[in-house]
Amino acid sequence: MRQSKLLLNTLREAPAEAETINHQLLLRAGYIRQLAAGVYTYLPLGRRVLRKIESLVREEMDRAGAQEILMPTMQPAELWKESGRYEVYGKELMSFQDRHDREFILGPTHEEVVTSLVRDEITSYRKLPVTLYQIQTKFRDERRPRSGLLRGREFLMKDAYSFDTSWEGLDESYWTMFNAYRRIFSRCDLQFRSVYADSGAIGGEGGSHEFMALADIGEDTIVACTSCDYAANLEQAEALAYSTQEPNLELLPITKFHTPGLRTIDQLKQELQIQPEQVIKTLIYQGGEKIFAVLVRGDHEVNELKVGKYLGVADISLADYESVKQMSGVESGFVGPVGLALTVLVDAAVAALPHGIAGAGQKDYHIRNVVPGRDFELSHIGDFRNVTKGEACLHCGEGRLEFHLGIEIGHVFKLGTKYSEKLGATYLDTSGKSQPMIMGCYGIGISRLLAAVVEQNHDDHGIIWPVALAPYQVHILLMSTKDLVQVELAEALYHQLNELGIETLLDDRDERAGVKFKDSSLIGIPLSVIVGKDAGEGRVEYIERRTNNKENLELSEAISRIEGYIM
Amino acid sequence: MRQSKLLLNTLREAPAEAETINHQLLLRAGYIRQLAAGVYTYLPLGRRVLRKIESLVREEMDRAGAQEILMPTMQPAELWKESGRYEVYGKELMSFQDRHDREFILGPTHEEVVTSLVRDEITSYRKLPVTLYQIQTKFRDERRPRSGLLRGREFLMKDAYSFDTSWEGLDESYWTMFNAYRRIFSRCDLQFRSVYADSGAIGGEGGSHEFMALADIGEDTIVACTSCDYAANLEQAEALAYSTQEPNLELLPITKFHTPGLRTIDQLKQELQIQPEQVIKTLIYQGGEKIFAVLVRGDHEVNELKVGKYLGVADISLADYESVKQMSGVESGFVGPVGLALTVLVDAAVAALPHGIAGAGQKDYHIRNVVPGRDFELSHIGDFRNVTKGEACLHCGEGRLEFHLGIEIGHVFKLGTKYSEKLGATYLDTSGKSQPMIMGCYGIGISRLLAAVVEQNHDDHGIIWPVALAPYQVHILLMSTKDLVQVELAEALYHQLNELGIETLLDDRDERAGVKFKDSSLIGIPLSVIVGKDAGEGRVEYIERRTNNKENLELSEAISRIEGYIM
Repeated sequence: MRQSKLLLNTLREAPAEAETINHQLLLRAGYIRQLAAGVYTYLPLGRRVLRKIESLVREEMDRAGAQEILMPTMQPAELWKESGRYEVYGKELMSFQDRHDREFILGPTHEEVVTSLVRDEITSYRKLPVTLYQIQTKFRDERRPRSGLLRGREFLMKDAYSFDTSWEGLDESYWTMFNAYRRIFSRCDLQFRSVYADSGAIGGEGGSHEFMALADIGEDTIVACTSCDYAANLEQAEALAYSTQEPNLELLPITKFHTPGLRTIDQLKQELQIQPEQVIKTLIYQGGEKIFAVLVRGDHEVNELKVGKYLGVADISLADYESVKQMSGVESGFVGPVGLALTVLVDAAVAALPHGIAGAGQKDYHIRNVVPGRDFELSHIGDFRNVTKGEACLHCGEGRLEFHLGIEIGHVFKLGTKYSEKLGATYLDTSGKSQPMIMGCYGIGISRLLAAVVEQNHDDHGIIWPVALAPYQVHILLMSTKDLVQVELAEALYHQLNELGIETLLDDRDERAGVKFKDSSLIGIPLSVIVGKDAGEGRVEYIERRTNNKENLELSEAISRIEGYIM
Repeated sequence: MRQSKLLLNTLREAPAEAETINHQLLLRAGYIRQLAAGVYTYLPLGRRVLRKIESLVREEMDRAGAQEILMPTMQPAELWKESGRYEVYGKELMSFQDRHDREFILGPTHEEVVTSLVRDEITSYRKLPVTLYQIQTKFRDERRPRSGLLRGREFLMKDAYSFDTSWEGLDESYWTMFNAYRRIFSRCDLQFRSVYADSGAIGGEGGSHEFMALADIGEDTIVACTSCDYAANLEQAEALAYSTQEPNLELLPITKFHTPGLRTIDQLKQELQIQPEQVIKTLIYQGGEKIFAVLVRGDHEVNELKVGKYLGVADISLADYESVKQMSGVESGFVGPVGLALTVLVDAAVAALPHGIAGAGQKDYHIRNVVPGRDFELSHIGDFRNVTKGEACLHCGEGRLEFHLGIEIGHVFKLGTKYSEKLGATYLDTSGKSQPMIMGCYGIGISRLLAAVVEQNHDDHGIIWPVALAPYQVHILLMSTKDLVQVELAEALYHQLNELGIETLLDDRDERAGVKFKDSSLIGIPLSVIVGKDAGEGRVEYIERRTNNKENLELSEAISRIEGYIM
């Protein structure tokens, strides 16, 4: 492609509303333009990258044995009422009435449509298992669209759905997709982790994994081991278990000491040089119409999801000031476990303390020599805390846990029979008995992936595309369009690279060298070739964008280097 | 692909609502399924064909120098109000409010979006001309969705838009696209004609051509020459001109004769053996607040579009019974041109008659020896009629005109400056003066094309795909899955064809031979290979779907025949 003909405008500055790097660079380098909040047009460069991702995803889906279909965007609202998701999605669902006042929604996902399709098409175990996928535009009315393609209202997804006759079959379909996803993200040169996760609004039974691209702008905290594959969302990460010791009854009895106004761990540390690890924090929670206490170490944080799960309560929160005072008889900051007339959940790290310091249950006093199991009951020991940075990995025992921020780029779910039961997708098993199909669903945000790759692959000058996704593989920069020797050499190179099937952009614009260099770095094509003052000797400058490695080479050498790099 | 794994159900009967062949076959052969009226899911076979059409169209667009982009489906309604099309489209436009009560429409086409995009991206003549295209889902709330994919509410389109600095430039862009369209439809093995046409609701200046696939279910009548390239919609087709003679004043004077109750040409022919070619029909029309008469020969039909154009009136219609009586002084059926106090438009074929028979202007009487130019004025002679079947072609003078019915599959328009002026898409010309861009737009219905190909390519047994669009190129029918010799040979063939990059479907289902043959004919893969009783001798039966030509061949011969056929 000749750049003089290409619809491509680079911008010196990104619009003010672009806060994240990927959003800024994609706008500045002329890949996308905004039409409305969270709604984008892909310009020629952007469309090319998007198509590369589509092809790559399609290849891996086909390799995994999934079959491509194409379902409609318009979905009858009744289907969503049947599945119960019409209410759950609420305002995120875009909907409209057709000319006959029939309500349709613009699909944010296709569980209902695919389940009703398979219900009608497959009636026997003989046609199962099957995995269907599509690459299709989705709609979600985000309350606050942001970060460009990362959280848009119209976006491109690959969604897939598996149908099995057994849970073992679902496992196989699930891990086949899981591995396909790993291949896809690896081929996109992404740094990512797969983490076990809650299913969220999409609902369902069984497990799920999120694939997270590591990035500082991520909205989720991921915990990952430095040594093994283990990774999880912070809420889900399992903390190192401590073994509880028999209480040492030889220890000195509890001693009260004066701590006027010292309500926090920080204050105790500052004023009295008490180590947080020695402190037993007592927090009063409410949830499910109950009030209860949770004990964690002073250097730990309560994980409310874990507490909620232990109690079988969906939604728990810290009790308010008044409730704390009423239930514990003292202001918060001085609550302690000894003599507390509440259910007490004890984190394993607390239970493992030989003795500790705690609130005295009396204003302006703490107590020391508090022995778990001697001074308060250990009826409810468990993992009730967030893991901490640097903590040993529970899974391999070798690595340490690191914290990352991540962007969700893919999600695999075991749905089980949630949709097949609601929508009647059954099959006849080998004995002729009707059974609900066992489903999985699998999503990749194609347009989001594009943004995530840019977020991970850039420097101060612009984007750095991995070869597999680059809009073009080689960028020829013709320094002077008036110098016939340069023009001839550039054209010869352009022609030869095209003949070799190498996608090449030729900057044949009548612009200054500085402009061409700047634009080239911004656009981020992996290799560039400068045709300039050495053209007379048939020499060019070969540059690798990622390393900024530059070499003065003969034309034929440059071509072999290019072939070597991109193959 | 193994058919035992493929999501594919053939149906013995098409659902009652499917009235056209393409709709019936695409449903029966398992290519598509309806989700709602005019809204379809593409099953794996349908998706494959759709992708082939997409690729073919993309290839030809790229070859023509168009650049691919992707614009959003969601378009702010304000844009459509700015262009004035919000009102014009009316109920066909699907629209919805987002969570902030901002109105969006689901794009049926993208003139507004692309014009505002180019307005912002291109400011100088240096970046022009440019042609942009996309392949994207469109929405149109048809009052009566029908014929399956032919007239759906959600459909796939390729739309392209050109931007030029001069009308000559537009001409070049226009004919480049025109020729690309010809290549696309030829590569799809379609029988089609390009016809000059009115622009319709999309509006604009300059000409336009429709590409029509010939088919008995078409909604438009096309006139085409048997010898040259000439083709036009019936409303637009130019009739053969007759040269008007000086009236022969030697002829006998007008004679009145009694025709009681004979009001129509048919009745005159039946009762009095009068040839319609001798009769001068006088029809009273109204339009633009005028009443006027149109004279055509008894064997011709008035073309209201031509009459309207001549008068510069948009909408004309036959006058009602009372108006006719009032204006001509006689009941319709006996109105004649002689002494008529109205403007009289005379079709050239009437003006060329030496003499004719006409209504007498008196109930139950006609007159003969009516000489044009002697007995009524010839102030308004023109082409006011539809052409007739078998008439000589005006353009080559050699061929005759034939009538066809056609399905619109593509449309190229010269839009001119309609949108660029409304939306302010201007550029600075070489002298620094601001000018509106001169636009063209070009559409192909991708999903409609699929339907049109089926409508033209089928027999009583099912679809007959052209090789370029077939979901698979070869269908191997394994007769007995229990016969190990057959299984081995079929697998070997399947493996070899896959190695050669030939897309192959292997019918490895445990079904009777009759079922396999029936399904294979219905699905319509161009070549099939039967692996049956001769497998022991390494022989198979090779069948071409279109000709039903069958040959018993050795495996290697069959493979070379396949390669020869599809290359």
